[in-house]
Amino acid sequence: MARNGPAGACVAPCVSVLGGAGFTGALAARLLHRHPSFALRAVTARSDVGRRLDDLYPHHRVPITLEELDLDRHAAVDAAVVAYPHGAAAPLVAQLRERGVRVVDLSADFRLRDPAVYELWYREHPVPELLEQAVYGLPERYRERIRSANLVANPGCYPTATVLALAPLARAGLLRDVVIDAKSGVSGAGRAANDRTHFVTADENVSAYGVPRHRHTPEIEQELAALGSEVLVTFTPHLLPLDQGELVSCYVTLERVDALDVTQLYTDAYAGEPFVELSAKPPGVRDVRETNICRISVHRDPRTRRVIVFAAIDNLWKGAASQAVQNLNLMFGLPEGEGIG
Amino acid sequence: MARNGPAGACVAPCVSVLGGAGFTGALAARLLHRHPSFALRAVTARSDVGRRLDDLYPHHRVPITLEELDLDRHAAVDAAVVAYPHGAAAPLVAQLRERGVRVVDLSADFRLRDPAVYELWYREHPVPELLEQAVYGLPERYRERIRSANLVANPGCYPTATVLALAPLARAGLLRDVVIDAKSGVSGAGRAANDRTHFVTADENVSAYGVPRHRHTPEIEQELAALGSEVLVTFTPHLLPLDQGELVSCYVTLERVDALDVTQLYTDAYAGEPFVELSAKPPGVRDVRETNICRISVHRDPRTRRVIVFAAIDNLWKGAASQAVQNLNLMFGLPEGEGIG
Amino acid sequence: MARNGPAGACVAPCVSVLGGAGFTGALAARLLHRHPSFALRAVTARSDVGRRLDDLYPHHRVPITLEELDLDRHAAVDAAVVAYPHGAAAPLVAQLRERGVRVVDLSADFRLRDPAVYELWYREHPVPELLEQAVYGLPERYRERIRSANLVANPGCYPTATVLALAPLARAGLLRDVVIDAKSGVSGAGRAANDRTHFVTADENVSAYGVPRHRHTPEIEQELAALGSEVLVTFTPHLLPLDQGELVSCYVTLERVDALDVTQLYTDAYAGEPFVELSAKPPGVRDVRETNICRISVHRDPRTRRVIVFAAIDNLWKGAASQAVQNLNLMFGLPEGEGIG
Amino acid sequence: MARNGPAGACVAPCVSVLGGAGFTGALAARLLHRHPSFALRAVTARSDVGRRLDDLYPHHRVPITLEELDLDRHAAVDAAVVAYPHGAAAPLVAQLRERGVRVVDLSADFRLRDPAVYELWYREHPVPELLEQAVYGLPERYRERIRSANLVANPGCYPTATVLALAPLARAGLLRDVVIDAKSGVSGAGRAANDRTHFVTADENVSAYGVPRHRHTPEIEQELAALGSEVLVTFTPHLLPLDQGELVSCYVTLERVDALDVTQLYTDAYAGEPFVELSAKPPGVRDVRETNICRISVHRDPRTRRVIVFAAIDNLWKGAASQAVQNLNLMFGLPEGEGIG
Repeated sequence: MARNGPAGACVAPCVSVLGGAGFTGALAARLLHRHPSFALRAVTARSDVGRRLDDLYPHHRVPITLEELDLDRHAAVDAAVVAYPHGAAAPLVAQLRERGVRVVDLSADFRLRDPAVYELWYREHPVPELLEQAVYGLPERYRERIRSANLVANPGCYPTATVLALAPLARAGLLRDVVIDAKSGVSGAGRAANDRTHFVTADENVSAYGVPRHRHTPEIEQELAALGSEVLVTFTPHLLPLDQGELVSCYVTLERVDALDVTQLYTDAYAGEPFVELSAKPPGVRDVRETNICRISVHRDPRTRRVIVFAAIDNLWKGAASQAVQNLNLMFGLPEGEGIG
Repeated sequence: MARNGPAGACVAPCVSVLGGAGFTGALAARLLHRHPSFALRAVTARSDVGRRLDDLYPHHRVPITLEELDLDRHAAVDAAVVAYPHGAAAPLVAQLRERGVRVVDLSADFRLRDPAVYELWYREHPVPELLEQAVYGLPERYRERIRSANLVANPGCYPTATVLALAPLARAGLLRDVVIDAKSGVSGAGRAANDRTHFVTADENVSAYGVPRHRHTPEIEQELAALGSEVLVTFTPHLLPLDQGELVSCYVTLERVDALDVTQLYTDAYAGEPFVELSAKPPGVRDVRETNICRISVHRDPRTRRVIVFAAIDNLWKGAASQAVQNLNLMFGLPEGEGIG
Repeated sequence: MARNGPAGACVAPCVSVLGGAGFTGALAARLLHRHPSFALRAVTARSDVGRRLDDLYPHHRVPITLEELDLDRHAAVDAAVVAYPHGAAAPLVAQLRERGVRVVDLSADFRLRDPAVYELWYREHPVPELLEQAVYGLPERYRERIRSANLVANPGCYPTATVLALAPLARAGLLRDVVIDAKSGVSGAGRAANDRTHFVTADENVSAYGVPRHRHTPEIEQELAALGSEVLVTFTPHLLPLDQGELVSCYVTLERVDALDVTQLYTDAYAGEPFVELSAKPPGVRDVRETNICRISVHRDPRTRRVIVFAAIDNLWKGAASQAVQNLNLMFGLPEGEGIG
Repeated sequence: MARNGPAGACVAPCVSVLGGAGFTGALAARLLHRHPSFALRAVTARSDVGRRLDDLYPHHRVPITLEELDLDRHAAVDAAVVAYPHGAAAPLVAQLRERGVRVVDLSADFRLRDPAVYELWYREHPVPELLEQAVYGLPERYRERIRSANLVANPGCYPTATVLALAPLARAGLLRDVVIDAKSGVSGAGRAANDRTHFVTADENVSAYGVPRHRHTPEIEQELAALGSEVLVTFTPHLLPLDQGELVSCYVTLERVDALDVTQLYTDAYAGEPFVELSAKPPGVRDVRETNICRISVHRDPRTRRVIVFAAIDNLWKGAASQAVQNLNLMFGLPEGEGIG
């Protein structure tokens, strides 16, 4: 539990969650509130200021009132989790960094290393000078860099699952062509109430969205390239009638197929990874619900010579908030799984 | 299909749907668009003007553009279905009546015969002078009056199911005490996108709302009293994680129990009713999905001497739009089930 | 409604449904029971003999008792719909054909023209000599042959959606490589109650199955080849937490891309098709629920030079039972959409 | 985590779960496997022997193989959780008690103190002589007795929620008449795959079952009487399209109403209870999912002079497995919430 010393001074590393009214910020607040080694100092919000988090999200049981942002108070912490929309996050992150606060940013603003790519898929980058210090917060990939990072760009939910699904093949330079068909629960669309998130629209339904240019595409391509496979991916997400959970189905044409033992490749790649599970059967999103685990299965189709990889995560946990805490744990020298196991 | 003569003149009775962007208005438009004997003249809306209905609701397949209300055009019809919110409907209905249009009103504005009761549960009644000509549009109860009515107040979804569930007992003067626990799919909450109708709130959830004073209560009491049983009912609705469908579970303490054969009472009461089904097993809402049918089962509990009655309807169909068409059929001398079977 | 003459003799073409306890057979019985031009003579079953269909499936409202198969009675009809499992269907179909009954078979037994392919994916074919007279029952493709066919092999649900999604490209010889990611509601897994169809397994879940060799694969490849594109497809179905509905997402690498106007290609290909809808937006399965419609959208991704095609159907309707009735309509010279519109 | 000493000897109190293939037994195994103070010795099953629990229930992550029952091995423990069906549990519990094993029994076999009542609702009691030593395992009610009990009868899920909902009124002798309308997710129907638990039956549906004599009725009446209110209750459960979660809606006619402050009554009654939450708004089952918490709200209806009480629990947790662990914690002098918070 969070423990505060006298006058609100933190004895444990002290963390603010900025933007805590949405799904991912609120979950980050819950995980930090119950975390044995962090003290949750405050939760700010852009809407619902003055409401209590345990009124908005009773199941999180965080007895804290949402506050309006006041950097003098909310930046007097060791670290901050920022859960602002893309574009709005970057200027806030810049202010936090100026005050020396270490940041895990849940937005897309610091995920793409090349500001030109960011501009192509989003808009002009507000603070491109900060991009250099940002570390892409996928611990299974950048664990050591994250430990010393002051600015961690928490990956998107789809890139998290996809990069974990494809990393062993990408690192071996084997990806020639990749089709990614992704499926996400409605929480992935965020808390905004609109026609698309209305129960009557989503229930008993499934459809694709973001066709053909979903913004997670360049993030996936950047990380696959960094691993060793320059490839243009076809990435298409679908909205499913479930709450939390995300499955990516990756259809890979290999550079060469011959003697490759893909199962062994994956077993080796993920040996010792505490939050990656390999499964013989295609994983279901129920298998990882409310966990920080990514569950992966890999299959060869001898007929088409393709490899098919499935990866399931909880989009709000490993796809956002619990991965943010995993990153914070690394940044503060704590056991990587503390408070998210 | 709707057939229009030259210059838009209707050869069949011509109907407008006013307020067609919401769930019930849009469904009424669909039923009238495909109706063999009515011509759907126009569909107006207060939001989404200019959008096509088959864009908003693809599954209804109504290739019509939503128009802004223009009484000179939209009241040049034989009848109108009004699907406006409570309070907003009454003045529009008054204007339609002034122009001689026969109206089926889906709002609560003309359901309560006593304006003082309306005021107690809603607000001051905008046009109390019209209440006298309104007929409560439950065909199984007021079939003959509906045939000649010019203003039909389409019942609320809960009162439809509840009054059908209890009418045989009420008519026999047997209701001493009634608890109604109602369960509704999310479409009953309407098209408004908000925290309550967000998929992530409603999915995997159930909770009561409108406790302890839901506005359908006086409507139920009025109709039970008219049948012969003056009783204060306890009525509590719950929101369920499903789209369309409504179940009322009625727990009745009888005035006297002795020799009563409740099964026979119900069989006699509903013999020949085309849209009431009696079932030995408790009905499920799937049994009546997308139909105008109310499915009822009645049970005695010899231990507690209570009678338990379940009634299932589709809240958008028998609870609103298909019942409106059933009423229109009666008003225009058509077969009662035309276009809704 | 079905009308029988004296002593059970049919005045309309008389049809039996053999294997009516499962989802698709029961729905075929419902559609035929309400069909204006066919008379439903009997419904047989292998389980649940003696139970009434309207007890098993109240929402179908077919007041008929399931009978044990007795060919002397059940083959005294003009046509039969056979809804037996793969392998069990073929011998029954052979007996029906010997007695001169025209058959629509919902199983896979007569879909593959080459018995060697059938043997590879299923088992040795029980009656290969019948394969020659079988017509693949996709009306949009083989309408004229179906009219005169005596044995129609109703397509699988996935091949129905996939072949309709890809036919315009296949006919133009444009398919170089195809990945099909399919999503189906649980009714596609049939009525058998097991761990996989248990609500608690399927709810809030999604996972792939039949990896990497689902039996619908050769059926898809056969039909694409017949259209002009010999291609090995990667086909992977997923189970979704919804009842009825199926979406196929097809990722196509074209033989050539240059000046192709895919939208125009599809518009031309499906002009006048009563049950194919083209949509600018990716279709949702709600859009086609309980209809015989296949709703398709086609998209180009200029970055990857792929074409992405989505097709949504109701797996029990266009994917099985209503398509069977569409075929029967053609076989008996009736309007193609009668009883399924 | 479970810790075993050399040769399988437990250093912590050692527990077996007998009947671990079902939903509640498997969850008990998971909670004990991760419990800081108990060592999970073995999990037996009547079906699925030889399968691993983390294959059957991946999300529980219990890497243990289901074994066939062998009392010489499985009774060499400090305590056992028995998750057998009603009737089958009692003889096994008797054998365990003979060997000195302390037992928490999840079945109904030891919940009813009067064997005549058991016989009336179930069958002849197999081991009535054991009834005397059984303590009803509702910690909020019998905490002290549970501490020293050797046989704890874990309450049914509905009685747990209902007795907690009504205890403050019952203790004050205020219950004159009680109607309980209960709603449960499908996991409450158990793991058996059948028509009722098939996704296609339960999805988009709601219906009552066990009308009018559900077996949890006498358990509720026994506990209300023990609290001070002899009353015949009307209890009707409904099956809802959700996985885990249970809501009871209790409609209470009071003996007297005058000056009663029900909110204060509940606040006083549950002050300090770690697993009872009071809420101003009607609770939803999402609020308590995967917790040991019972969330209650109480409302007065001045019109009907009734009190309405809602209580939400997770049927598999507080309604079964986590309450069993809560009881074990009490029995072994551990913090009451250890391993279930």
